[in-house]
Amino acid sequence: MRSYIYAPGPTPVPPHVTLKMSEPILNHRSPEYVRLFEEVTEHLKYVFQTAHDVLTFTASGTGAMEAAVANLLSPGDRAVVIRAGKFGGRWAELCAAYGVEAVPIDVEWGHAVDPSVVADVLSRESGIKAVFATHSETSTGVLHDIETLGRVVSGRDVLFVVDAISGLGANDLRPDDWHVDVVVSGSQKGLMLPPGLAFASVGPRAWAASDRATSPRYYLSFKRAKEALKKGLNPYTPAITLIMGLAEALRQIKAEGLANVFARHARLAEATRAGVRAIGLELFATRPSNVLTSVTLPAGIDGNQLLKHLKARYGIIMGGGLDHLKGKIVRIAHLGYADEFHAVVGISALEMGLAYLGYQFKVGVGVAAVQRVLTFERSNV
Amino acid sequence: MRSYIYAPGPTPVPPHVTLKMSEPILNHRSPEYVRLFEEVTEHLKYVFQTAHDVLTFTASGTGAMEAAVANLLSPGDRAVVIRAGKFGGRWAELCAAYGVEAVPIDVEWGHAVDPSVVADVLSRESGIKAVFATHSETSTGVLHDIETLGRVVSGRDVLFVVDAISGLGANDLRPDDWHVDVVVSGSQKGLMLPPGLAFASVGPRAWAASDRATSPRYYLSFKRAKEALKKGLNPYTPAITLIMGLAEALRQIKAEGLANVFARHARLAEATRAGVRAIGLELFATRPSNVLTSVTLPAGIDGNQLLKHLKARYGIIMGGGLDHLKGKIVRIAHLGYADEFHAVVGISALEMGLAYLGYQFKVGVGVAAVQRVLTFERSNV
Repeated sequence: MRSYIYAPGPTPVPPHVTLKMSEPILNHRSPEYVRLFEEVTEHLKYVFQTAHDVLTFTASGTGAMEAAVANLLSPGDRAVVIRAGKFGGRWAELCAAYGVEAVPIDVEWGHAVDPSVVADVLSRESGIKAVFATHSETSTGVLHDIETLGRVVSGRDVLFVVDAISGLGANDLRPDDWHVDVVVSGSQKGLMLPPGLAFASVGPRAWAASDRATSPRYYLSFKRAKEALKKGLNPYTPAITLIMGLAEALRQIKAEGLANVFARHARLAEATRAGVRAIGLELFATRPSNVLTSVTLPAGIDGNQLLKHLKARYGIIMGGGLDHLKGKIVRIAHLGYADEFHAVVGISALEMGLAYLGYQFKVGVGVAAVQRVLTFERSNV
Repeated sequence: MRSYIYAPGPTPVPPHVTLKMSEPILNHRSPEYVRLFEEVTEHLKYVFQTAHDVLTFTASGTGAMEAAVANLLSPGDRAVVIRAGKFGGRWAELCAAYGVEAVPIDVEWGHAVDPSVVADVLSRESGIKAVFATHSETSTGVLHDIETLGRVVSGRDVLFVVDAISGLGANDLRPDDWHVDVVVSGSQKGLMLPPGLAFASVGPRAWAASDRATSPRYYLSFKRAKEALKKGLNPYTPAITLIMGLAEALRQIKAEGLANVFARHARLAEATRAGVRAIGLELFATRPSNVLTSVTLPAGIDGNQLLKHLKARYGIIMGGGLDHLKGKIVRIAHLGYADEFHAVVGISALEMGLAYLGYQFKVGVGVAAVQRVLTFERSNV
């Protein structure tokens, strides 16, 4: 059966990107590869909106998260960790693995952290070396206010590290203007590639911290990646076919223009949210991201059953709730290689699934709301 | 121009493996993926020739090497490192990164380590926790005698860790019979895939060591990989398309039969060596691997110029000498998706390149020698 991906990663891979990855493999020490990787790195800086370095690792996004901890901090350091979902929690686990004392700020899932709380913690706690945050929290669909958080962190001797694994290329993020020292991301989200590549932008304060940090690292070393990058290379044999595909995907993003890419994600997210509301459901995220729309399911509708039905009957793959939200929310991505009819089909499937499971509403109202937003480009029509 | 890969990795990817990787991407939490990954893991155990665990990481081979150090050892531990080439040297660098004191056994490049030297060092040195060795050293084309080394290490409270990144599936390696606790490998060699996946087989003594080791690790944690594997999953979003391709490549290896795969590599290596000798050149490796044939270039022939010419004129990509061997040797792989005419073309290209650069010999003698071996399956015909 044909399948339709609405899970927030891995996202659909455009056919011409797949074709590029199917070409005969380049040797990673050849001049052809150097040219390609230098182009990729320039384009990554465009997408990351940074004038500083963007390093590429052959790893899951978690590998780049670990790289941030290992390259910036030393055992015994203290760091503030914003935990507002499953992936925020990962920062705390990584700190623990490296002997870094995590000072957690726990936020109810579905909500964004209040920047003034972060300011209070930073004023109260001593010896904080870094703040670890999440841009778009994939488990809840919440977008955190990185710009304000950056202002809160700036002016202190504290590094600001942001996980933008799912948010990169969907919601605006300006590390150089917003005082973010390291942004990490992955290939299988807004970059429209299969998983297997992870990235870290590294600003000047992060480089200085990396010189001081004593945590062990080799494969994930920022410095080793930078040394190789000076020659247009990777320190170890990289996932070459994914780099070949990435070159193509980044050309596509460059051609569309980052502002247009953000606007497209915003429009699809707005249309999807309008569809959800029209059906009579509530958004789970109080500050929704443009990466995905998380929907609180009504009483009597089991999310696991809904997802199972949508997949078995229609090939529709949506995300479910993680951990304590299992069965209670559904997560509908509009990320990467997604166009307007992707949003139409997504809400259409949600309606058909809900109707099948006995939820009472006027079938079609959601799709109509999506169509209105997409036609007139505003949601209050 | 069509290109012909004789570099010892990345090796050519079979078209049907490429096709599998081009299929719509699976979700890494779906039942379909679980089925695939469980099959992959079973087949990996077949290729690794182990009844114990084989863990898969999204990483370069170096990532799995680092995993071995980080999961087995603690800062202050001592380990013997056999350095007989560039990749043996990497073990020492990894130990240094993790605060492990490396006791090096340096072997002249082109030679295999003498197991009795390892025995002497183990008898002399106290507190050695592990021996790190290389199966087939890609930088020199040497095959180390892992079976005898395993006997030397066995009976002591010392772990034996082998880098078989290039050797897996080309030269026999029996960790369970040969007292090897951890074997690491990568996807872009004998497994016929693009780079991006790394593997580690982990035996019972290694698991016990992993429980004691205090080095920090998270992304490369054996334990986290094993916990996820129990559910047929990876702990973090894996390189899904590479896993899809791996499933196909492993089916092909299973269908051919591992013994036949080894025999094919042995035959191609023998034919290539016969061709090299017939041209009048010397083998660089005193104990040659079936992964690649390293050839000492005659006086007056610059290896860099030879490789450049072969690539520009014929699209032939061979490996050159690394570090101090730059320009002095050429490395001809016969690894993975290689058949008999791959060997014919390789020696043919070598002859044409040498002739073009003015080396005096009877053009065609090398190819004839290759043909004789391939026809009669012995080299002394």
